[in-house]
Amino acid sequence: MTIKTVVWNENVHEQHNKVVSDIYPEGIHGTIAASLNAVPGISASTATLQEPEHGLPQDRLDQTDVLLWWGHAAHGDVEDAVVERVAEAVWSGMGLIVLHSGHFAKVFKRLMGTPCNLTWREAGERERLWVTARNHPIVAGLPDHFELENEEMYGEPFGIPEPEQTIMISWFQGGEVFRSGATWTRGAGRVFYFRPGHETYPTYHNENVQTVLANAVQWAHNPAARVQNVTDAPNVPVEAALEPFEARGPKLHADGEEGFK
Amino acid sequence: MTIKTVVWNENVHEQHNKVVSDIYPEGIHGTIAASLNAVPGISASTATLQEPEHGLPQDRLDQTDVLLWWGHAAHGDVEDAVVERVAEAVWSGMGLIVLHSGHFAKVFKRLMGTPCNLTWREAGERERLWVTARNHPIVAGLPDHFELENEEMYGEPFGIPEPEQTIMISWFQGGEVFRSGATWTRGAGRVFYFRPGHETYPTYHNENVQTVLANAVQWAHNPAARVQNVTDAPNVPVEAALEPFEARGPKLHADGEEGFK
Amino acid sequence: MTIKTVVWNENVHEQHNKVVSDIYPEGIHGTIAASLNAVPGISASTATLQEPEHGLPQDRLDQTDVLLWWGHAAHGDVEDAVVERVAEAVWSGMGLIVLHSGHFAKVFKRLMGTPCNLTWREAGERERLWVTARNHPIVAGLPDHFELENEEMYGEPFGIPEPEQTIMISWFQGGEVFRSGATWTRGAGRVFYFRPGHETYPTYHNENVQTVLANAVQWAHNPAARVQNVTDAPNVPVEAALEPFEARGPKLHADGEEGFK
Amino acid sequence: MTIKTVVWNENVHEQHNKVVSDIYPEGIHGTIAASLNAVPGISASTATLQEPEHGLPQDRLDQTDVLLWWGHAAHGDVEDAVVERVAEAVWSGMGLIVLHSGHFAKVFKRLMGTPCNLTWREAGERERLWVTARNHPIVAGLPDHFELENEEMYGEPFGIPEPEQTIMISWFQGGEVFRSGATWTRGAGRVFYFRPGHETYPTYHNENVQTVLANAVQWAHNPAARVQNVTDAPNVPVEAALEPFEARGPKLHADGEEGFK
Repeated sequence: MTIKTVVWNENVHEQHNKVVSDIYPEGIHGTIAASLNAVPGISASTATLQEPEHGLPQDRLDQTDVLLWWGHAAHGDVEDAVVERVAEAVWSGMGLIVLHSGHFAKVFKRLMGTPCNLTWREAGERERLWVTARNHPIVAGLPDHFELENEEMYGEPFGIPEPEQTIMISWFQGGEVFRSGATWTRGAGRVFYFRPGHETYPTYHNENVQTVLANAVQWAHNPAARVQNVTDAPNVPVEAALEPFEARGPKLHADGEEGFK
Repeated sequence: MTIKTVVWNENVHEQHNKVVSDIYPEGIHGTIAASLNAVPGISASTATLQEPEHGLPQDRLDQTDVLLWWGHAAHGDVEDAVVERVAEAVWSGMGLIVLHSGHFAKVFKRLMGTPCNLTWREAGERERLWVTARNHPIVAGLPDHFELENEEMYGEPFGIPEPEQTIMISWFQGGEVFRSGATWTRGAGRVFYFRPGHETYPTYHNENVQTVLANAVQWAHNPAARVQNVTDAPNVPVEAALEPFEARGPKLHADGEEGFK
Repeated sequence: MTIKTVVWNENVHEQHNKVVSDIYPEGIHGTIAASLNAVPGISASTATLQEPEHGLPQDRLDQTDVLLWWGHAAHGDVEDAVVERVAEAVWSGMGLIVLHSGHFAKVFKRLMGTPCNLTWREAGERERLWVTARNHPIVAGLPDHFELENEEMYGEPFGIPEPEQTIMISWFQGGEVFRSGATWTRGAGRVFYFRPGHETYPTYHNENVQTVLANAVQWAHNPAARVQNVTDAPNVPVEAALEPFEARGPKLHADGEEGFK
Repeated sequence: MTIKTVVWNENVHEQHNKVVSDIYPEGIHGTIAASLNAVPGISASTATLQEPEHGLPQDRLDQTDVLLWWGHAAHGDVEDAVVERVAEAVWSGMGLIVLHSGHFAKVFKRLMGTPCNLTWREAGERERLWVTARNHPIVAGLPDHFELENEEMYGEPFGIPEPEQTIMISWFQGGEVFRSGATWTRGAGRVFYFRPGHETYPTYHNENVQTVLANAVQWAHNPAARVQNVTDAPNVPVEAALEPFEARGPKLHADGEEGFK
């Protein structure tokens, strides 16, 4: 079974900033997709902000097992309808991996219900990621820690809901720490946030980072058929109750009526 | 120290439905506020949909320790700006207690990041609430279970993020179960969802229900000063790093520049 | 890759009680193992209390991916050394599925750190299990609810730590509810508790129950190599620090000394 | 209402090591108790390993709201009966605060169900604690971070169950990180682990550390009456069922019989 994966990127810096386009001539999305396609069982394609419906029409999301999301400068340009469509796909079973500055992506904030803010410093400092959940599938094959010699700093407090699991914590040269790998469940969908990936450094060429992303795709993949009508709130008439009983008392709704939303 | 509490109600059924207005002549909000005001240390007032800014202008939220929310028929009439204002107040430390059909309130869905849907049946059946977290402050003084002879049924699956604590689970006469008392943290704010409270039954006159609400107000109260600028993502210049180091590598942002949002 | 599974059973009632031996002529362990062996990718064998080291010598545990545990009358006869061995295997990555009256098994209490108590009634009443985590791998292929016409009742409060995920909740004919499917992580190992399975009813012949067990084996399987020395607390000499610095201040331990335990 | 607090210390290094006794002439327990007694609403006394029943007879635990625990060299000398007694007190509602090397205390391992191991280095390096849960009661009045100029290093992976809340994370000069403030619930009792406190440094004289301990005592205090018979598993006879029904099927237990343990 192949895991159909889409790597989404706003693809903005790659167009305007020579530093970024030199590091990622195929775009951040291209580099990540290529690294995923090298993994047996994963089939990755890309989508970008500039495409119609940002490359994420409903029928493509319906066919997507896991979506990766990289955005930074253009969060505000992502249409709300697409955000809601992605959120519904997650609730119904699609996996979502949010990368680096995607902490401020509309879709991440939508799914977390919190500001998702943090402190930051762009100074090329050393980051060391420590594994806090040994043998979690997302860190399979990794050592207990690994380093990125140049990264942007993100510091606590990180405005997220308490993670279901904190997988990695970063140490920064300048003195900060950060929960860099964290998981949540939203409906039938699994969500993973992974911190590194500033666009002016070659982070997505790093082998350990690529291992994390491939592991995360496999972890986030829910092979079950998508949940249908994932926001419905069906009425169960008293005649259909699993344990028979006689209805009592006053009613607001006529039989079979739909509820308020 | 008095806990400044506001009971918000859409106050719609009370205006149009004689069954509801007979049970709650002062409105659901009036009944709840009166029961809270009988508790030493709690001072409760009310707010309704029909008031300017739904009775929740910024300066009132700034002074509110805990907000209770009852809505049903008019979720869609609540202005998005007020929803966002309430969410920010929660992140900065205000407690929020969401009641019954408020599972579909915009503000609850905003904070949960999930559909918050369920199954339902309005047939006046018996509900029995079981305590699953003995001696949790929210169930202080309650027996291990208590009954409501007539209630609307809400059934699983309930479309919420995994609760941080599941405090109560309901048994229904017709054969369903439901996580009826559940807690989450969102930023500095505590959130509690409490299931019972269909408007055609006298649920908020029930002594055990009133105990839960009073306990929940005390539990949700965070006495710390509100977090300021709760969505900010401040830049930490390299010169201000706690551990001195020399900046390296290419930069996207000029010094002191604000980040993307 | 085959998941090496061991079904452990105290195998006591099967020897002394005709009701039980009529339902499970091969023992509860035999019935469960047979149902698991019918699933591609799972290879199940059995172990019982009466065997040397209860059938769980170290080298067998080293080769076991997932262990299922059924016990009731003879919890006290399980040797503490075996309990500790099983706990270490879980920490290092073995999955563990605890069944029904195994809530009081030494190994479950050891891993939970709580009393694991509950209320109970043996009266052959109807149990209905509701799925609360749609599309969780453990409930793949199951409907939103299923029934067992005759089961022992277990009621809340259930003395467990808050589950990482509550997968199923039971409704009982006599008026109780129970968290019947719950998961935890302990080190690199995944733990699942599943409530049904009283020995005087044919529960393990039920198709939905067999589906849950097969799913749970697959979910609990951690393919990573076992963590070695899983209780060690290694000293990191200052000379080996990842960021060089000069040691300061008074010391309690000589260099390279082992820590206290 | 006064929070009756007991500070337990093995009190070993203070007797044999001049460095330690110079920093803590009244013992670590004496220094902590004095700092707690300076806080209105807290009344702290001490207990040590050397006293009969380690200073923790049943009637004293019955009167204790919150217990703090410092141990290091003598974990193995703590009697198992006292460990079990403390665990039962926690389950029934006593708060427990475990300090520093207490990560290896029998009572902490008993309540966690995991090895509680870590890496360590005694080199007087700088530790900086970052708050990850803003405005949590345990960090009330603290800045977003604070420093301890000389501390022992504890590094991840830390062998604990996923915390219910991670309150603080430490940055270490030598390059490690650690979850330094973490909470769990065990039955009706709240448990907090707080990392700093190596005996050769004056950590418990630090004002921020003292603030954390005082806050933690208030947070861990459960004012409800203790749960009685906290490990019992009561039988509910069919005649006493909340919803009347007729018992069916074969039975293992005679009516009113006690269950297996």
